Order: sequence, then structure tokens, then C-alpha cells
Amino acid sequence: MKVLIVGLGLMGGAYALRLKKKGYEIYAYDINEEAISIAKERNYIDFGSTNIKDYIEIAEVIILCIYPQMILDFLKNNNKYFKKTQLITDICGVKSSFVKEATSLALPATYVSHHPMAGREKSGVAYSNEVVFEEANFLITTIEESNNIGIEILKKIGNDLGFKRITVIDINSHDKLIGFTSQLTHAIAVSLVNSDDNPSETKKFIGDSYRDLTRIAMINDNLWCELFLENKEFLFEHIKRFEFELDLLKTALANDDKETLKKLFKSSTKIRKEMEK
Amino acid sequence: MKVLIVGLGLMGGAYALRLKKKGYEIYAYDINEEAISIAKERNYIDFGSTNIKDYIEIAEVIILCIYPQMILDFLKNNNKYFKKTQLITDICGVKSSFVKEATSLALPATYVSHHPMAGREKSGVAYSNEVVFEEANFLITTIEESNNIGIEILKKIGNDLGFKRITVIDINSHDKLIGFTSQLTHAIAVSLVNSDDNPSETKKFIGDSYRDLTRIAMINDNLWCELFLENKEFLFEHIKRFEFELDLLKTALANDDKETLKKLFKSSTKIRKEMEK
Repeated sequence: MKVLIVGLGLMGGAYALRLKKKGYEIYAYDINEEAISIAKERNYIDFGSTNIKDYIEIAEVIILCIYPQMILDFLKNNNKYFKKTQLITDICGVKSSFVKEATSLALPATYVSHHPMAGREKSGVAYSNEVVFEEANFLITTIEESNNIGIEILKKIGNDLGFKRITVIDINSHDKLIGFTSQLTHAIAVSLVNSDDNPSETKKFIGDSYRDLTRIAMINDNLWCELFLENKEFLFEHIKRFEFELDLLKTALANDDKETLKKLFKSSTKIRKEMEK
Repeated sequence: MKVLIVGLGLMGGAYALRLKKKGYEIYAYDINEEAISIAKERNYIDFGSTNIKDYIEIAEVIILCIYPQMILDFLKNNNKYFKKTQLITDICGVKSSFVKEATSLALPATYVSHHPMAGREKSGVAYSNEVVFEEANFLITTIEESNNIGIEILKKIGNDLGFKRITVIDINSHDKLIGFTSQLTHAIAVSLVNSDDNPSETKKFIGDSYRDLTRIAMINDNLWCELFLENKEFLFEHIKRFEFELDLLKTALANDDKETLKKLFKSSTKIRKEMEK
């Protein structure tokens, strides 16, 4: 299968190298010549170009590994080339804001969006070999119009990439869930680290709790700025519920209310243990 | 050296088994006979008893591995037995609330407090062999009256237990720091997990971010209730600064203020990267 990777960053490179190993023919487009050189040197791709027209018509599957806000522009600029037999997809972490429009812009090609729940606190194709898919979820995100053949091809790709679990979910449920498990957790980690009034002293005394909780405070600011803004309604809802729970804990503390504190701890322990199963 | 471990729980057992391997003579006291049986079977201790009087006078070092609020009672009930040549210490995670009083109650023995920054999301001596000290900090927490010989003995013990770094710090600075790196992180993790309005659905879609951030929401409710309440002044300060930062982020989101969002992300990335060094 001929696959065109649009955007040879951390994730584009990770897709290329995994799929090439599985026998796919990999074409790559990026505006950055250096990224293409690295990917060629390391044998992640078969062909690479800074000119999208070189490959866009021969590709059977086009995977957009670019920033969310670039997706609609890409589709607008290139929709004269799309063909009925092509599947176009993207790896973006939030969906509601663009998938419906993308689906209509990509016509006559099939557009089905997906979200690989994996990444690294680094960016660039030079680190693509560090991305691990084996323990991660691969979410195929659908709207009513989503095409079954497109979904099946994505299942095969998710499988060939090595993901642990492949799930089909509608974009609205996806964005609500991701707002909680991903955007909210990043908002918390960023705020926690920024609230440190003496980081050079803190550094000497951190344990696993702090280390694990704040790892994701190292963040690609351009990408996450887009993800936050595009999912801000759900994110606000989740922040509100989080603040409500933190207030319960503060009130219990202020009142030396041991019973409520223990109830909160027992509740979080029970819920979180359930997730391990 | 004859060491008496008071309280054969997760941490008491971990101290016993490590120190016994290093050639210390290990005595243990616990009210729970089963804990003593397990520790004897596994060769974690040389002698164990449910009667504190059996060992309290022969011990050269007494390590209190009991809940914070039990420490003062223990010292009051037993201070007629203490001797000038003894060092008494505890492993409690917050200090300001009891160390001064403990120091005077333990007389004529030497009292120096310390805090091993290690643990597990489990309790009981049956899990003691899972506690890892090798990457952790060992904090010797002092007040003005703290005795130098006591500090030196604790340095040796921290070393023999295998801790990576041993630091001497005054109790006030200790409790402020720990309020941030430990109590605040636990408060956040607990509130995050409790704010989930659909855990059984969330479970299907969690990634590393959520998993790492919420691991410590599985918490020993009796122990952490005490730790929170005994350090509540510092914890309130830290929660307040955290909420201030979260509000900055919310305001930026509400205003679609990309510049501020990126500034917050860049700041957290820089601070957190510095911690890795």
C-alpha cells in the first residue's frame, strides 16, 4: 500500500518507520528538507519531497501528521488532486472543531480521522524511534458520514503500527474524554510546576510523586496551545469539576474533618484501582 | 548495632530487612502478631515481640515506624525506659507538629527525626520487599537542639539502607517543601480522580499522562489524613499558589489568548527540564 505521510515530525516519522518495516511503500512530504534527509538516511521512508504535488495523486492513504490548524488549509489547497479511491486521515488529538468540514473538503476521497494515544516530551523526526505504540490506544474517531471501508483500512494500519487496543468512537465522546484524560492532566501539571516558588530548592527534594505528576509539564507549546483552545468547552467543564473536588478537600482540611478526608481518599483509591484491572 | 523497629508495617519491614542484611541486630515490636510472624519467617528480623518492654532497654537505636499521631503517645508511655546512650528517630513525612515535643519527651535519649522519601501504594510488612530506596532521598530533619552524634548515626543508617542522597534540613523548610512536592501532589491526584464523572468509560481511553498523574490517588487514607492535617498551613499556601496558576490558564483559555498560554507552557517546560539535570 502506498502511504503519503504529510509532516515528518516526531509522530509522522514514527508512523513512517513502523509502516515501512511492515512493507508499506512510504512517501513523505515536509517543508523542511532536513527532516526529509534524516528520514531517508535512517531508512524511515522510500521517497521524500518538499513538493506535495510529487506524491499526492499516487498515494492510496494520506496521513496528515501536521498541527490541527493546518489540516483544513491543507485540504483546501489540495482538494483538486484528491481521488475517490484515496483514504485521508489525521492524527490530531482533538476532533470536533474540524472533522466535519475536513470530511466535506476531502471529497471525493474518503476522510476518516483517528487519534494515536502516544507521544513523547520531544519533537522532531530525530526522536521518532523513541515513540512507543505497544501499550497505547488507537482511536478511530467517526461522524455519521464516516465510511466503513475507511474505518477498516485504519484498523489495519493501527494494527500494523503495533497498538495494543483499537477502538471506534464518535468525535464528540472522544473530545470529552480526551479533555479529561489529556488536556486536563496537562493543565494541572503545567499549573503545578508554575506554582513552585523555589524550583532550585525543590529540585533537591523531589520524589516519584512529583516526578511522575509533572513529567507532562514539558510540553510542545505550539501544539498544545491549539489542542487546548480547540477543546476548550470540554476542558472548562472538566476543570470546573476538578476545582469542585479540590474545594471539598480544602473545606475538610479547614474543618479538621477527618471523616470527609478519609472518604475522599477512599473514593480516589477505589476508582483508580479499578482502572488497573 | 542493636536496632529496635517500632511498628512492622510496610516501611518498618523495609528498614528491618535492609539493615539486617547489613549486619545490624534487628529487634521488632508490633501489636500485630501476624506481622511479627511474617517478618520472622522471611528473616527480616532477629527478634520480635508484642511487648515493648522486652527490647526497649537493650536497643541502641529505636526507629519509630508508626503513624505520626502515635509518636508522642509512644514517647510518653515509655520515657521511663529511655537511656542516655540511645538514639530515637522516626520516619514520619511531616515534622513541625511533633518534633520539638518529641525531643523533650525522649530525654535522656537523643531524638533526631528523619524522612525517607520512598514508599509504595500498598501497606503491610508483606510488601516491604517491594520498597525501593536506591533512587530516593533520605532527609535528616533537625531543630536547634539536634545532637550531632545522632545526625552522624542517621547518616550511616541512611547509607546502609541504600539511599541515593542524604540531606540535613531544618524541620520548617522540610515541611514547606514536602507540602509542595508530596501533600499538594496527592491532593491534586485525589481530586482529579474523584472529578471523573464516568470512570468505567475513562478506563478504556487512558494514556500514560493520566496513569502517571493519578497513581498516587491510591492512598493509605489513615496515614495521609494525618499527614494532610499536620501540614495543613503549608498545604493551604501551596494549593493557593496552584489555584492562582490554574486561574491564569483558565483566563487565557477564555480569552483565546495564545500568547499567555504559550508563555505558561514555556515556563513549565523550562522549570521542569531544569529538574531533570
